[in-house]
Amino acid sequence: MAEKPIQDMAAYVDEVARRARTASRALATASAAAKNRALEKIVELLNKNEDEILKANAEDARAGRASGLSEALLDRLTLNAKRYRSMVDGAREVIGLVDPVGEIIRGWRRPNGLLIQKTRTPLGVVAILYESRPNVTVDAAVLCLKSGNACILRGGKESIHSNRAIARVLADALAEAGPHPWAIQLVETTDREAVGLLLKHSREIDVVIPRGGPGLIQRVVEESTIPVIKHYMGICHTYVDASADLKMAAKICMNAKTQRPATCNAMETLLVHEKVAADFLPAIASEMRDAGVELRGDQNTRKLVPWAKAACEEDWRTEYLDLILSVRVVKGLDEAIEHINTYGSAHSDAIVTSDLFAANRFLREVDSAAVYVNASTRFTDGGQFGFGAEIGISTDKLHARGPMALEELTTYKYVIIGEGQIRES
Amino acid sequence: MAEKPIQDMAAYVDEVARRARTASRALATASAAAKNRALEKIVELLNKNEDEILKANAEDARAGRASGLSEALLDRLTLNAKRYRSMVDGAREVIGLVDPVGEIIRGWRRPNGLLIQKTRTPLGVVAILYESRPNVTVDAAVLCLKSGNACILRGGKESIHSNRAIARVLADALAEAGPHPWAIQLVETTDREAVGLLLKHSREIDVVIPRGGPGLIQRVVEESTIPVIKHYMGICHTYVDASADLKMAAKICMNAKTQRPATCNAMETLLVHEKVAADFLPAIASEMRDAGVELRGDQNTRKLVPWAKAACEEDWRTEYLDLILSVRVVKGLDEAIEHINTYGSAHSDAIVTSDLFAANRFLREVDSAAVYVNASTRFTDGGQFGFGAEIGISTDKLHARGPMALEELTTYKYVIIGEGQIRES
Repeated sequence: MAEKPIQDMAAYVDEVARRARTASRALATASAAAKNRALEKIVELLNKNEDEILKANAEDARAGRASGLSEALLDRLTLNAKRYRSMVDGAREVIGLVDPVGEIIRGWRRPNGLLIQKTRTPLGVVAILYESRPNVTVDAAVLCLKSGNACILRGGKESIHSNRAIARVLADALAEAGPHPWAIQLVETTDREAVGLLLKHSREIDVVIPRGGPGLIQRVVEESTIPVIKHYMGICHTYVDASADLKMAAKICMNAKTQRPATCNAMETLLVHEKVAADFLPAIASEMRDAGVELRGDQNTRKLVPWAKAACEEDWRTEYLDLILSVRVVKGLDEAIEHINTYGSAHSDAIVTSDLFAANRFLREVDSAAVYVNASTRFTDGGQFGFGAEIGISTDKLHARGPMALEELTTYKYVIIGEGQIRES
Repeated sequence: MAEKPIQDMAAYVDEVARRARTASRALATASAAAKNRALEKIVELLNKNEDEILKANAEDARAGRASGLSEALLDRLTLNAKRYRSMVDGAREVIGLVDPVGEIIRGWRRPNGLLIQKTRTPLGVVAILYESRPNVTVDAAVLCLKSGNACILRGGKESIHSNRAIARVLADALAEAGPHPWAIQLVETTDREAVGLLLKHSREIDVVIPRGGPGLIQRVVEESTIPVIKHYMGICHTYVDASADLKMAAKICMNAKTQRPATCNAMETLLVHEKVAADFLPAIASEMRDAGVELRGDQNTRKLVPWAKAACEEDWRTEYLDLILSVRVVKGLDEAIEHINTYGSAHSDAIVTSDLFAANRFLREVDSAAVYVNASTRFTDGGQFGFGAEIGISTDKLHARGPMALEELTTYKYVIIGEGQIRES
């Protein structure tokens, strides 16, 4: 199915934004029961339309192969029966999560008798810009729906057929089961102009969440007049302290690097205290090599691991998302913290240590969304934290930091009940 | 004292941002005791240097008068002995507030034994752009200091002499008492180019808070690559429902409009249910007139209050900040909510009613930072909410909504304690 060219892009994007804003009013006051009915219908229709969606996905894969996409990207965009199952299961699990809307976060009575209730409300309209993986379309849509937000989804052009097929099913479900037929809006064009136009709709859209590489993030930050929550890269570190249990350190490092290297919470840089470098580095290096990991070390690392490539300044700032690891020997905790705060992306960083004072300092002074003692950085994930599902990992400090789940898709309002109070001064 | 021209503006702004970032590392780990010592020194030196600061302020007033500033603006920028006292008292009160940093907001243990602690941390570097009132320089500085943030302050050019004099005193206090001499940075130039440069320092600055009129806000939103929390205008409504106690309604409306009309939480538009318009409007209109309020009404209002001026579409979107009130008769709750969500600025809106169902719908469906039943909108204020002090009123939905006090000047990190846990799947 070829893309129909859109004659008037500005009018099209206006309409998408306006529909989402209209739906958001209905969603904000929809009961948890009403939202769950819609979610159940979505699960039902996703099951019913599996063949159609997989067919559309196969079309994306064919087009991607023809246009020379890398195997890694092709893999990311491909849905098979198992992945499809897990996508639908994810949507089903959201039905069971607690609706965050309406929670009274705090409540108190003032001396003048006013009752103030800080009450959780939806954000309104959430726009999500993402790349390749079509399952994000379902994940994002159901999390926004559950948290009472209308959403505008803009996926990558590589998965446009899958996304359109999924969006049709979602729209059918909303038309049948409510709470509003326009609650989930897919931007149906891959034209980049549409993104630029969308980013100016600050009256209709409350927040933009870009999930993707530096190019996408940069563009959104520069063009958007809407508040942005960046889901940027993870340059995650593990620092092996002088007092580390080196067996534990090896286990944690191997897991953080190799268990799923293409994720944002995988380790990209290993920092080792100079006192344990000779004991630790040669052994972990060969274990990494056996696992297919390419090492890029500083001078001191290469004295101990001569076969490692030389790391350059750029390596410390690189998210490989691959079986590559940069390694640096540091003088101690101070240099490790300094390195992380200088080169890291404030995502997830770990220390392996037996020294309580070192642990405390690391936890206090490393300025990242998740700071670990004696555990793998791979745990930074909504599911692993017990949030049930996540829309991604925020690398921003405002509003949401780290895994962003249902609660982070909400804001609050102050509900104030009086009996005629006026202000005297 | 004439402004020294800055030769290289980019280098100057770089230096301001770099100093603030450096100080922020020390502030983030400073104890509450250390921060309170600095606050006490600030109070001491503000007392000692009152004459000098008032002299600088008199210079601003002279320059303002010479350049033809309005009396209202001159009043806003003028510090007298009483206002000076209240500014210093405000700073002293912050010493007594609880330090929000380090609070464990939530903590839980996962099935695999990982202990997760969601822990409150400072934002880092906060830039505040504001207009005329020089007391904001002290208010913002002490709140940022108490919450462990370095701050960059950029006041209006009308109060540059006052701000420089205050900044010198603040810098002296920090130099003497810590925690870091660069914790409070004043942008010492009134050159607008400095703001543009500042707004691109997203590596050094974590959040920008613009407090001011539409021009300032618009510019910041368009130019900033740093996250922004807008302190925009308050187009606040009071809706008098059919079931309202009309005596209570009159008392609330008079308070909301006239008690301090130049504040953002003052009422700008009165909405009246058509069923009570004939009983309510003529009486409140003469009371308003007696208080010097100009009325601008829709057609139905002017049938009942012939002397009211005619309101045009623009009036519903205007924050008068003055003794002017727009008035509209509505068919009922639906039209009132629709009007508020269409024309309001999502700041503070009130219903006066005896009908519980009307109250509930108003509270749920009006999408504003503060929604009131039977009380004056004038209560939207950090002090009135019991927060002790505020940096302003956020009209954004992300991060902070409504009064923004110490807690809203913080973010959080996840502190995760393991004993060798790795991720299996």
